[in-house]
Amino acid sequence: MNKEQLFEFHIRNNWFKISRYYNQIAAKYDMSFSWGFIMLNIEKEGTPSTSLGPKMGMEPTSLSRTLKNMEDKGYIERRMDPDDKRKSIVFLTDEGVELRKKARDVVIEFNQKLYSALPKTKVDAFFDIMQRIDVQLDKFLEEKNNEL
Amino acid sequence: MNKEQLFEFHIRNNWFKISRYYNQIAAKYDMSFSWGFIMLNIEKEGTPSTSLGPKMGMEPTSLSRTLKNMEDKGYIERRMDPDDKRKSIVFLTDEGVELRKKARDVVIEFNQKLYSALPKTKVDAFFDIMQRIDVQLDKFLEEKNNEL
Repeated sequence: MNKEQLFEFHIRNNWFKISRYYNQIAAKYDMSFSWGFIMLNIEKEGTPSTSLGPKMGMEPTSLSRTLKNMEDKGYIERRMDPDDKRKSIVFLTDEGVELRKKARDVVIEFNQKLYSALPKTKVDAFFDIMQRIDVQLDKFLEEKNNEL
Repeated sequence: MNKEQLFEFHIRNNWFKISRYYNQIAAKYDMSFSWGFIMLNIEKEGTPSTSLGPKMGMEPTSLSRTLKNMEDKGYIERRMDPDDKRKSIVFLTDEGVELRKKARDVVIEFNQKLYSALPKTKVDAFFDIMQRIDVQLDKFLEEKNNEL
């Protein structure tokens, strides 16, 4: 099996290129693209910081460092959860809401460019196969969990 | 556009699940899956450490920290490049070579499981669409570079 025959080679390669693309745009706003992703995952009514990590695929320490930096820049605010004082809820500031809109535009523009560059049948095939792979990965992960 | 319609949502989601899968296996060997990937990218005749970063999609500081840890564990050796003393060349130790074989088996097993779980036509569609997306991403990145 050479690396071009490996599923993860392509998934990883494309993910890294997409990250690079978004990072180039984010750099203009003096931020990294993960800031944009975090903003897109913060709801109007606030989002518990504990629920952001799994969504972002980030380690807790790395997430909390990033949230700290975003707070220092004035894009988010962390307030204590009234129901559980050990937890914090993340809100966007007005500046954060503005940047979130930019991030949203960038994401939509990127995806529309891909949609128009690829034949419709290939796009459909993409979503179909990615969902199938996702189902398999869940199975494999469950099997691994049961082994442990 | 909801998130299921975003290309990167699926690519990122699958990449994170694959990482989690490999990390679960790597944890048994008291390592992270990036160690396995690094080992698989080290050639018998040694690999310049500067060429590992781009292959791994890792930042130089994060890569050099990881290489340091792998060296401390005795899996790799870094030797000065005789042609350019500012550079180092990474070699696998005998223990590293053994672990590399394990990593290779794990990768092949995972991919074979996916190959057998998915219909052949869907697998072909996967490689086709991922290559098409790769071509587009290169174009987008080049456009962005020209803008800057």
